[in-house]
Amino acid sequence: MARLVEKVLCILFSLLVIASCSVSPVHSRKFKASEPCKRIVLYYHDILFNGTNVANATSAIAANESKLGDFKFGMLVVFDDPMTKDHHLLSPPVARAQGFYFYDMKTTYNAWFAYTLLFNSTEHKGTLNIMGADMMDQETRDLSVVGGTGDFFMARGIATFRTDTFQGTEYFRVQMDIKLYECY
Amino acid sequence: MARLVEKVLCILFSLLVIASCSVSPVHSRKFKASEPCKRIVLYYHDILFNGTNVANATSAIAANESKLGDFKFGMLVVFDDPMTKDHHLLSPPVARAQGFYFYDMKTTYNAWFAYTLLFNSTEHKGTLNIMGADMMDQETRDLSVVGGTGDFFMARGIATFRTDTFQGTEYFRVQMDIKLYECY
Amino acid sequence: MARLVEKVLCILFSLLVIASCSVSPVHSRKFKASEPCKRIVLYYHDILFNGTNVANATSAIAANESKLGDFKFGMLVVFDDPMTKDHHLLSPPVARAQGFYFYDMKTTYNAWFAYTLLFNSTEHKGTLNIMGADMMDQETRDLSVVGGTGDFFMARGIATFRTDTFQGTEYFRVQMDIKLYECY
Repeated sequence: MARLVEKVLCILFSLLVIASCSVSPVHSRKFKASEPCKRIVLYYHDILFNGTNVANATSAIAANESKLGDFKFGMLVVFDDPMTKDHHLLSPPVARAQGFYFYDMKTTYNAWFAYTLLFNSTEHKGTLNIMGADMMDQETRDLSVVGGTGDFFMARGIATFRTDTFQGTEYFRVQMDIKLYECY
Repeated sequence: MARLVEKVLCILFSLLVIASCSVSPVHSRKFKASEPCKRIVLYYHDILFNGTNVANATSAIAANESKLGDFKFGMLVVFDDPMTKDHHLLSPPVARAQGFYFYDMKTTYNAWFAYTLLFNSTEHKGTLNIMGADMMDQETRDLSVVGGTGDFFMARGIATFRTDTFQGTEYFRVQMDIKLYECY
Repeated sequence: MARLVEKVLCILFSLLVIASCSVSPVHSRKFKASEPCKRIVLYYHDILFNGTNVANATSAIAANESKLGDFKFGMLVVFDDPMTKDHHLLSPPVARAQGFYFYDMKTTYNAWFAYTLLFNSTEHKGTLNIMGADMMDQETRDLSVVGGTGDFFMARGIATFRTDTFQGTEYFRVQMDIKLYECY
């Protein structure tokens, strides 16, 4: 009799285990914002082409600003910018950022970015694809890492922007704190 | 003897449990289109800048249409548009939509969107990043929510567009039915 | 006594199973690059509008190249291109690719893409949204499939580009090897 009870308990217990495993809904899969599986902090340097600085420039205007407001609304810039580990422009780049941004507010400087980080070093090979709004008057703002390839195969995460310096639209530098929550 | 059988059965059963848990492939993770973990229905209002309506306009042409066909192929518009809960333009916005669209068909009006929804209210703080084709002659069309931040940390889902009114390219209004299937 | 040991062992074992199931972190969810849940290989054909080929052209310049370098830096092209199963331009298209690319390097042809594949056949109905860098001087390069709709509901994966022919910027053809690792 005791054995039967024991047996039944064991089976019930196992069923409970099965249930708890298979029912666990996708929605409850938890990422913690404070616990990325990978984190990379880099500095983005953007030197806009002004017609004469071909050697130094790393970005160029593709579409001119409109007359909607005074903050270059509609100006679209294509870039191939160096990413460095510290905030010195001349530090050896550890990645390139290729993509575009445009300004999109009437009342202040505000931008929108979509770009790829290309890594090709001994440390990392692969890409990260990022997009989102860059609300420049906030101290930090979060964009989405929507995919990755190579070492970052199928990655997702958050890229937190922090303006390091903004010298008009000619040169600016942004700290990009990239936190991945899906790593494979 | 019975005890041995029982013991073996129990162990086999547990092994089965292990197997069913660990083998369960990612691919079979199921989202149901009818069961989003979060749903938000909003109206998008786009008033194009025509050179004189600075006060009202919320978007501007960044790149002019080409001469390929008669449906503004190549015209690229940058926007910072209000999102409201009902379809009244003057209702208090509950979010901003910042991004761009362009027209991309020779034979009909058809667009492509990439943008960020920015929420900054007591109800929601955070962003959703969205991209996809807007096949305007279909009653509804689905775009992808490819990422989110803040309250929408790491979200993914579908944004279903439904044209509410299209008054040429100067003013149009789209119902955006945003369904998230990954919520954290 | 033996029964007690047995019972305890069984319970401990089950606890172990529970632990192994529930603790298993999201991060360790494994995709294998060699084992997509879905694979589609298609050819992309881009015929640029030159002012006179309205009938044949499937793409048009939205923003002109800048003078930064000799490789059309900043030239932005909007496209609505046919996708075929083999590399013949005139094969029946099985999908459309709608989106844009731009050139973004001073020293070589290099592009960045964001677009939607639209399927509307008996085989597939739905869309895939793709973005990433197209490093044209590499034999293959990977972009991210960041979302999908319809038959490709919530899909993610990798799109591998391989240049099939590049006749200046007027006509080029790219093999796109689309591998999905999240299928629902």
